Amino acid sequence: MADPTSGPTPTATPTATIGLTGLAVMGRNLARNIARHGHTIAVHNRTAARTTSLLEEHGDEGSLVATGSLEELVAAVEQPRVLIVMVKAGEPTDAVVDALVPLLDEGDIVVDAGNAHPDDTTRRQQQLEEHGLHFVGMGVSGGEEGALHGPSIMVGGSDHAYDRLGPVVESIAAQVDGEPCATHVGPGAAGHFVKMVHNGIEYADMQLIAESYDLLRSVLGISPAEVADIFEEWNGGDLESFLIELTADVLRHTDRTSGTPFVDVVADAAEQKGTGRWTVQSALDLGVPVTGIAEATFARSLSGHREQRDAARKVFDTDPDPVEVDRDRFVDDVRAALYASKVVAYAQGFDQIAAGAEANGWDIDLGAVATIWRGGCIIRAQFLDRIREAYADEPDLTTLLTTPYFAQAVLDGVHSWRRVVATAAQSGVPVPAFGSSLSYFDGLRRERLPAAVIQLLRDSFGAHSYQRTDRPGTFHTAWAGDLAEVEIEA
Amino acid sequence: MADPTSGPTPTATPTATIGLTGLAVMGRNLARNIARHGHTIAVHNRTAARTTSLLEEHGDEGSLVATGSLEELVAAVEQPRVLIVMVKAGEPTDAVVDALVPLLDEGDIVVDAGNAHPDDTTRRQQQLEEHGLHFVGMGVSGGEEGALHGPSIMVGGSDHAYDRLGPVVESIAAQVDGEPCATHVGPGAAGHFVKMVHNGIEYADMQLIAESYDLLRSVLGISPAEVADIFEEWNGGDLESFLIELTADVLRHTDRTSGTPFVDVVADAAEQKGTGRWTVQSALDLGVPVTGIAEATFARSLSGHREQRDAARKVFDTDPDPVEVDRDRFVDDVRAALYASKVVAYAQGFDQIAAGAEANGWDIDLGAVATIWRGGCIIRAQFLDRIREAYADEPDLTTLLTTPYFAQAVLDGVHSWRRVVATAAQSGVPVPAFGSSLSYFDGLRRERLPAAVIQLLRDSFGAHSYQRTDRPGTFHTAWAGDLAEVEIEA
Repeated sequence: MADPTSGPTPTATPTATIGLTGLAVMGRNLARNIARHGHTIAVHNRTAARTTSLLEEHGDEGSLVATGSLEELVAAVEQPRVLIVMVKAGEPTDAVVDALVPLLDEGDIVVDAGNAHPDDTTRRQQQLEEHGLHFVGMGVSGGEEGALHGPSIMVGGSDHAYDRLGPVVESIAAQVDGEPCATHVGPGAAGHFVKMVHNGIEYADMQLIAESYDLLRSVLGISPAEVADIFEEWNGGDLESFLIELTADVLRHTDRTSGTPFVDVVADAAEQKGTGRWTVQSALDLGVPVTGIAEATFARSLSGHREQRDAARKVFDTDPDPVEVDRDRFVDDVRAALYASKVVAYAQGFDQIAAGAEANGWDIDLGAVATIWRGGCIIRAQFLDRIREAYADEPDLTTLLTTPYFAQAVLDGVHSWRRVVATAAQSGVPVPAFGSSLSYFDGLRRERLPAAVIQLLRDSFGAHSYQRTDRPGTFHTAWAGDLAEVEIEA
Repeated sequence: MADPTSGPTPTATPTATIGLTGLAVMGRNLARNIARHGHTIAVHNRTAARTTSLLEEHGDEGSLVATGSLEELVAAVEQPRVLIVMVKAGEPTDAVVDALVPLLDEGDIVVDAGNAHPDDTTRRQQQLEEHGLHFVGMGVSGGEEGALHGPSIMVGGSDHAYDRLGPVVESIAAQVDGEPCATHVGPGAAGHFVKMVHNGIEYADMQLIAESYDLLRSVLGISPAEVADIFEEWNGGDLESFLIELTADVLRHTDRTSGTPFVDVVADAAEQKGTGRWTVQSALDLGVPVTGIAEATFARSLSGHREQRDAARKVFDTDPDPVEVDRDRFVDDVRAALYASKVVAYAQGFDQIAAGAEANGWDIDLGAVATIWRGGCIIRAQFLDRIREAYADEPDLTTLLTTPYFAQAVLDGVHSWRRVVATAAQSGVPVPAFGSSLSYFDGLRRERLPAAVIQLLRDSFGAHSYQRTDRPGTFHTAWAGDLAEVEIEA
């Protein structure tokens, strides 16, 4: 171990199992986690002060080797080298990767542990392949605490890379029932793709929680602390999850300055970093309706449009009268609606992973994805064990919604779900995610959809043709003429 | 005029005002429209048979000059040349544009009249600029009939190009109150961008119509012909529009084979060509919530997922009991809900055009866009006159929703809207676009949004920070520690 008081020191012979550059909070915690698990890790940061402070403050936690340049970092790691890059997505990542390439030897492995767009990962992988190098897009979820104490890790890239990287990441990941929350989800950009969809689901999850809070508070007229009690109770049942627990905590907090509930002093404009947006854009290309994630992403955008909100509030200043509800029944209705909507959000997200895997030839094991999301990551939940079981029973299932456990859960809650969406509409509480999820469910289960009207209109104004229910073929009706139907050659 | 019986013939001296290549139905009708308005137009198609048949069948409608190759086409048009390309978007367009470039002279103008992605238009414009050529992305809406009898035309590109192209397109466009439904909406890809959003709004419009049909038929238990009567009646009021009129027509049609309502023999899987998807993807990048367009696009995707729909129908086969409603009141409620949701869809679409214009420096006159959408295009409606007036009163308005006319319309209909969304939820009728539009409205007008909860969660698990309502700055609370709040440096 380097002397923690002397700052970065060059190392003459490679002694580290792995290297990491980028010691902001996530990189720093990941490095500590790796060191704590007995791996010798060489660390580097563009500004040396961060390296020095890491060694000073945590050098005694394990084998941390400080290095003062990328050259030193590379020299410190055993071949074939594994070098984790943990810098900002986009150009900063490109800059570091470009600087590393000339320093590496064939077979070396560069790991991007940031939230890159899967297309960027594919591009970088192709670039590095030309140099005989391996590039791994690795999704890491769990925030700062997860990075330090055990995140969920979604690894893409080659088998060769995982042979070298796997033992390290599996040792530092969260462990659930003796299984690590880390796996090689698939080749290429599969790791970053799965992480992107994970974050998309996280958007939907949080929006559903926010709508539940809003409904409970607005319709029942109760305080944030009372809502916190309800979330705490929910956390003892099927909804048990990190985010539900966290919601109870943050809602109970009181502002130290004013003494008011903290949620009331926080600006109600939700920010975003892009992964929700990317998920929806990708789903549009794949033809997978991820309505919950889309509504959640747009709800964040809406909340930030201050000028429009001010204008609308002035003109539409009257809330409708709240609907009269029985408190206990409404609380249970919201719980059931939240659970059913959550099932929809996850069903949609897993559909997207399946579609992305197929489009890219990645062969992703969806059960394995559910397994590694059970712990470490932001959306970790008891619920994911049920998803894991569903895929274990039927690896190629058509939709999570119709598997026995989830179908029963939705059937048990469907009347509650309907009451909640109806009450929200009547009470003026916006429920984009609840409403959209119910519409998705009703759309999927209905015998006939009014999409037939859309096909008729498209054929009528644009001769876009249609298909019939009673025989194969593609047809067009002469709407502006004699209304005769003609079969169009395929 | 060329002898219509002799097929394509070369022309020695340029005599045509304009040229057009690509004589599938849209190009053919556009060429006839141009010829009928007294412009000499040189026409070309890759397979000459189409050129021949155009001249044979319609050569007497005006000055159509048949040409047998791109070289002949170019030679036939007066300089600076205007050449309209009307072939499939993507690679076919690239192929024709690439073939034209070496044949042209500085200052010539290539016009892509297909539905190109604005990014493709920007790219092609840059490429042609290097050759001293002008490239114009021109959106043409109105389908086959519109192309022939007067479409709505959204022109991008340079002023130089519009000087030459404008008189032709303004003469062939639909005319409303003596004004042509064609204008130079802005430079660069502005024309294709506005056309893209037009199509996105068209998706939302059709989805809202489809949901209205479904509600009327399912909740009231009436026949498609009775629904047609209701749409016909609506077409006499505020909802007067091409699509409402067309809906009445197609719903009244009976299948000639089986004698059943035609809508029941048409497959209920709505197809799409991409512009809805592009609109939503662009809106996500621009941070503009276009929830109506997104739900409409995803509803089409959902309708095509046959396997999932079959699985869901088997498991969730019981429709809820329909809610008891008064027929006349429900019909009027659906009408009001349709109108209010339509206002939201257009407000969102115009927001996107404003945001796109700002992001690209296009300076688009939104009132002019409303003006040229009043006639010719698929979404033409009386309603657009109100939008035009709103922008005339206030060119930089914050949102269409709060302008006096639309605010009053929404206020008049808001109780109906709430009842319809509540009834749909209770009756099991999917209303993704109605529900989402109401949630958007409620989100925009509400004093406080639960987005504050999302900010708290993000700060709690990811240290993403938040802002406060009572003082400026960016803050973080030590959630896992002593709950102290720190101000973060900007």
